[in-house]
Amino acid sequence: MRASAYPLVDAGAAAALVLAHAPVLGAERVPLSDCPGRVLAEELVASAPLPAFPSSAVDGYAVRAVDGGKSLRVVGESAAGRPFDSKVQPGTAIRILTGGVLPDGTDCVVMVEDVELSGEVVKIPAGLVAGQNFHAPGADLRAGEEVLRAGTVLGAAEIGLAAALGRADLPVGRRPRVALLSTGDELVEVGKKPARGQIPDSNRWALLAALRDAGAEVRLLGIGPDEPEALRRLVVDALEGADVLVTSGGVSVGTHDLIKPLLESLGDVHVGRVKLKPGKPFTFATIPARMRVSAPHPGPPPDGGREKVAFGLPGFPVSSLVTFEVFVRPALRKMQGYSQLQRPTLPVRLGYDARATADRTEYQRVTLRREGRDLVGVSTGSQSSSRLMSLAGAHALVRIPPGDQGIKEGTIVEAMILALP
Amino acid sequence: MRASAYPLVDAGAAAALVLAHAPVLGAERVPLSDCPGRVLAEELVASAPLPAFPSSAVDGYAVRAVDGGKSLRVVGESAAGRPFDSKVQPGTAIRILTGGVLPDGTDCVVMVEDVELSGEVVKIPAGLVAGQNFHAPGADLRAGEEVLRAGTVLGAAEIGLAAALGRADLPVGRRPRVALLSTGDELVEVGKKPARGQIPDSNRWALLAALRDAGAEVRLLGIGPDEPEALRRLVVDALEGADVLVTSGGVSVGTHDLIKPLLESLGDVHVGRVKLKPGKPFTFATIPARMRVSAPHPGPPPDGGREKVAFGLPGFPVSSLVTFEVFVRPALRKMQGYSQLQRPTLPVRLGYDARATADRTEYQRVTLRREGRDLVGVSTGSQSSSRLMSLAGAHALVRIPPGDQGIKEGTIVEAMILALP
Repeated sequence: MRASAYPLVDAGAAAALVLAHAPVLGAERVPLSDCPGRVLAEELVASAPLPAFPSSAVDGYAVRAVDGGKSLRVVGESAAGRPFDSKVQPGTAIRILTGGVLPDGTDCVVMVEDVELSGEVVKIPAGLVAGQNFHAPGADLRAGEEVLRAGTVLGAAEIGLAAALGRADLPVGRRPRVALLSTGDELVEVGKKPARGQIPDSNRWALLAALRDAGAEVRLLGIGPDEPEALRRLVVDALEGADVLVTSGGVSVGTHDLIKPLLESLGDVHVGRVKLKPGKPFTFATIPARMRVSAPHPGPPPDGGREKVAFGLPGFPVSSLVTFEVFVRPALRKMQGYSQLQRPTLPVRLGYDARATADRTEYQRVTLRREGRDLVGVSTGSQSSSRLMSLAGAHALVRIPPGDQGIKEGTIVEAMILALP
Repeated sequence: MRASAYPLVDAGAAAALVLAHAPVLGAERVPLSDCPGRVLAEELVASAPLPAFPSSAVDGYAVRAVDGGKSLRVVGESAAGRPFDSKVQPGTAIRILTGGVLPDGTDCVVMVEDVELSGEVVKIPAGLVAGQNFHAPGADLRAGEEVLRAGTVLGAAEIGLAAALGRADLPVGRRPRVALLSTGDELVEVGKKPARGQIPDSNRWALLAALRDAGAEVRLLGIGPDEPEALRRLVVDALEGADVLVTSGGVSVGTHDLIKPLLESLGDVHVGRVKLKPGKPFTFATIPARMRVSAPHPGPPPDGGREKVAFGLPGFPVSSLVTFEVFVRPALRKMQGYSQLQRPTLPVRLGYDARATADRTEYQRVTLRREGRDLVGVSTGSQSSSRLMSLAGAHALVRIPPGDQGIKEGTIVEAMILALP
């Protein structure tokens, strides 16, 4: 057993290195039903004006504004989807329903509440204005107009817009395929009774949730074998069908920690330790598409030979989720083409004295509460790297720079927002 | 054609009515892999302490604090999952790895970086403190401690906690099963070329996204037939397997609008019009489990006879999504047991003069930008109920009370946050 040979990398520099190496995966077309939460891969432009025709905004009568104050004979109807297709003559009106086409020869719609109807004659109020109560063609979108930018997250309104423009599918960023592995001789399957010294493999399920929330498709590899060659075979096989390897545990300096040597043998370890609390043992590597192994599948590598990225997360539960937030989530978003890679931030007034760690950037977990117009950040209690309660229900992460200063209670900081209270 | 016979209901009163009628659906057990985004249905209590055993926080040597400054013989190892199971004698040390059990007879751990090792003898620094560098049993959670409250949304940390406590599945609120129907003679399937006066059925896909985001399982009924009896049969059949009916279109006062008469015939229409802009024709009804029809499936109704709820949303795209936000989403969250039913709000400085509507509460769509510590709300442009661009990319909804006052630029309002910039 020895102290780690890896240099301690500054947290910001490590995050930049990770992002620089994360590849953008390219696009795929998916039907609208699969679009929610996906990222638009190309700009969406209106191919036609919206609405495409002058469309009534109300139920009422289509008339000419100059006929205001007159009694007009009702000679037809324009319902939604059933236009009145003749030209309307002076002195007459057309009953029109919401969404109906404004007939030729009319220039405004009078609401049904504003008329008097007797038999087939309708009394129209005075003072009409041409253009009233209907949507002109192109009023909502002109043909050629940019509707959505590439990198936009597709929610209900964005998908509705694409559908209104007649698009039944959209190009979206491909989801990263992630192989997820837990390592550690102390792990047992969740649900099995642990023997003395054993703990349930909780990281698998926590990271599965975090990965899915970040848009990844996850393949669970379970608990890795403790024999180096068996572990190596498992990882090499899994990487054949994956873009990303995420492991938890096994990155410490102990004699039984296998991940760093494995990643070294497969590719290049760019970060082996980081000046971060929690999360010092975080490891990041790239692995060439043609791995440094006797390839089990000869022939050209999948994905045109794209490099894989590998994240060795620490085994402590909070360390694994905080390093996920700081390093893995932005990378997965870059891979999918998100325009916004980082969590949003908001100004938060610290509700406690935050002590700094001398040589490491610290991410402290806080809940937020409102005090007047301010958001106040309250510590979630002991920030021990094993204590998931410090992250459960947390609304934000507060970054404390290294040093001996800390951040005094009452200071306004930009906090990474995980959820609003 | 006539003006609507339904009284205009105040927007707040309508929202309260909807919530009062929305049933809580009850719980189901799902494996941890299906828990992300679900709502915990019962309090989670720690069945055992966490950690369950004294667990080393670092790689190093387990010793007695009184041996500080001495040279000790290394007589064994306690690795994660492989405890050293004898009692440690004075004058000796045990090599210990992160996560390893602190052996009996020792009371602290010295980090590997702080010792000098020669052969099997380790030189320990002076000034050790009992309790150093290990997690005591129960330090993270005591047995019997409340871990998560019912109504909590399950994210990565919450799921990790449950897993660490050995729970392989959790009781979560059942997802509402929603039957989604579009109505309107003007609708064509998205992707088909619309004839004059026709428009693509965009609401189906926008509402599908909104419903899924709110946790619903959606069955798409497509575009409803324009013949009342056929529509009725479709809806009655769909409600056999659904908790909720959501329709868009067909709630206006025109002669071809079929939804209100249908809901009247099946159950009780509680809201037929609402003082809301956009969204005045919003309709809400409850339908008894045994519908007022010649039942196609005799026998006891499913779900122990629970009442169904039906939402008739307006056909205009923005109206349907805004009424979804105001009425449907909180109801779906209540049905699943969420403790927080409404969107979070934040103080936002209005960046424009917001005009009010005399007799209706208005929800205006804004984007947010930061100015110093303030969030400033900027109108998304024309707030026409057909213009989805007013909702695409919107970060918040600003509620403008009815009247002739409006809200002046620079005023601080509590805005419903849809997304942070």
